[in-house]
Amino acid sequence: MTTTVISIDAMGGDHGPNVTIPAMAQALDAYPNVSFLVYGDEAAINNQLSKFKALKKVSTVIDCEMSIAMDAKPSIALRQGRKISGMWRAIDAVKAGEAKACVSAGNTGALMAMAKIILRTLPGIERPAIAGVWPTLKGESVVLDVGATIGGTAAQYAQFAVMGVAYAKTVFGLQNPTIALLNIGVEDVKGTDSVKEAAELLSHSELNFTGFIEGDGIGKGYADVVVTDGFTGNIALKTAEGTARQMGEYLRQAMSSSLMSKIGYLFARGAFAALRARMDPNAANGGMFLGLNGIVVKSHGSADIDGYATAIGVAIDVAEAGMVETIAADIDKMQSLLDDAWAEALA
Amino acid sequence: MTTTVISIDAMGGDHGPNVTIPAMAQALDAYPNVSFLVYGDEAAINNQLSKFKALKKVSTVIDCEMSIAMDAKPSIALRQGRKISGMWRAIDAVKAGEAKACVSAGNTGALMAMAKIILRTLPGIERPAIAGVWPTLKGESVVLDVGATIGGTAAQYAQFAVMGVAYAKTVFGLQNPTIALLNIGVEDVKGTDSVKEAAELLSHSELNFTGFIEGDGIGKGYADVVVTDGFTGNIALKTAEGTARQMGEYLRQAMSSSLMSKIGYLFARGAFAALRARMDPNAANGGMFLGLNGIVVKSHGSADIDGYATAIGVAIDVAEAGMVETIAADIDKMQSLLDDAWAEALA
Repeated sequence: MTTTVISIDAMGGDHGPNVTIPAMAQALDAYPNVSFLVYGDEAAINNQLSKFKALKKVSTVIDCEMSIAMDAKPSIALRQGRKISGMWRAIDAVKAGEAKACVSAGNTGALMAMAKIILRTLPGIERPAIAGVWPTLKGESVVLDVGATIGGTAAQYAQFAVMGVAYAKTVFGLQNPTIALLNIGVEDVKGTDSVKEAAELLSHSELNFTGFIEGDGIGKGYADVVVTDGFTGNIALKTAEGTARQMGEYLRQAMSSSLMSKIGYLFARGAFAALRARMDPNAANGGMFLGLNGIVVKSHGSADIDGYATAIGVAIDVAEAGMVETIAADIDKMQSLLDDAWAEALA
Repeated sequence: MTTTVISIDAMGGDHGPNVTIPAMAQALDAYPNVSFLVYGDEAAINNQLSKFKALKKVSTVIDCEMSIAMDAKPSIALRQGRKISGMWRAIDAVKAGEAKACVSAGNTGALMAMAKIILRTLPGIERPAIAGVWPTLKGESVVLDVGATIGGTAAQYAQFAVMGVAYAKTVFGLQNPTIALLNIGVEDVKGTDSVKEAAELLSHSELNFTGFIEGDGIGKGYADVVVTDGFTGNIALKTAEGTARQMGEYLRQAMSSSLMSKIGYLFARGAFAALRARMDPNAANGGMFLGLNGIVVKSHGSADIDGYATAIGVAIDVAEAGMVETIAADIDKMQSLLDDAWAEALA
């Protein structure tokens, strides 16, 4: 049986191996054909790994002399962690072809900086993006960029659209995903110049562009792929996560407010468990770095075991689907369409 | 008894007088000393007004020959609606001293454009902002700008902070509200240049500046006043509203998923009613235009009667508190502090 090899930055995240190793065990249950290259402090890793016999068999531990701090400046992390950090070496395993994908819950800025240097962007892509999977009333949507870079040109937004479409095709199995640009109104007159120009460009492309949506349109599932810049996208994502937690807290307070509500809770606790699962931000964990010559999945730093296991699952899914190859081919094809669209838009 | 006069753009909003007039009646119940100047189509207004005897007594209807369309471009609305539209005349009543505050659920861009021309910005304010009241786990916070303008300089962010502080003092009765800048991380290295410069500036001021917060920090109530630009703020606000509605829909689905959950709902319906009230975006309705020589409150276009009545209540509260005078005095005082802070930051 061929296995899918995933490289793990085991020390990354708020909880390090206490979360990453048990999560690997959980992922192995779901994906029996996975094996792991595990980068980090060998003693700390083995301490956890000794608890999971089956996992130990499919894991190779590579001792690394340093770990990137969660709050390190990316430039300093790069200088100090180049070649020797677990994060660098886990990404480098993808570049070397030893692993099909890398998973890290570490410092996002450092991870993106290293991934760009090691893997490089695909031809036709100026900037990579982080794509998040956003639960909606209709299912799930891809939102990008949720934090790789700030601002962007119309052409960069169009590249994000192409990348997001390839990702949505792979993870949702869609033939022709719809795309929308996030804006402060659905009218053509509103928004930043680059967002308005991007709309002009995309409407001249052969992509399935449906126009602008506002913030509340994401959760309504108005588009399969929602394109925005990393500043706005990150704030929208964190705001949605915060609001979901806030609603959960209101619900908890309401259900413990009286004897009657407590009795009601007892009757409905199965429904509440299902509700909690849907509201759990960990359920959709795993930001995908798109636009690079290789797969890097960024887990939330605060992810729990379920959340980190979900991120590993996303990495395995896209690796086995050959998503990078799909993106490269689609970008190449759509790039020429976009070039034509540019020419048409400027004509 | 002296009355507080509020001017109403009665035709504004998705439902026009069908919502605005019943909402006025509701506001009159809560504020018996209010009276109204009602601008719009006299026949349509009187059709509703005839249903509310007490309201009719305290309302003066001013027939206006045109209404601003909800989807009109602000520049066209200005050209066509200058002097003659209900929106213009309702704002002009504030300028003329006939009304203490204006309420409109109409076209936001047109309302802001007219308000700027008619009322002008206060000395020391380059741009007005729309401030929203955001429910948090600790109570409520002021978030601005939620849609007046796109982008901004460090100095403009600082002015927003000063305005937001004055508003928070008035509506929340706080002595020394805390301020945070919305950003994509809490570290100093992240964010746009203008946000980073604004942090530098505010940290040298005597304002109660606590640093950066991320999107999920708003709902946690980490700061009384959250400062951002109108593009990001509008998308954050709409995203939060959308997520709240999404969670409500998940809850509804969960509670009707089985017989047990339906029985649970029956026991807990009092708690659910209280929960719905807290999750209702209409409860915090009323975007305040800050930085102008007069009070204009923007209601959601889709507000229902409760929502529009809340917006009227906000207008009455800030008018009776003399908020514009407070802001003018605070801006003047804090402006010189900020000037000193500038000098210090640049030194």
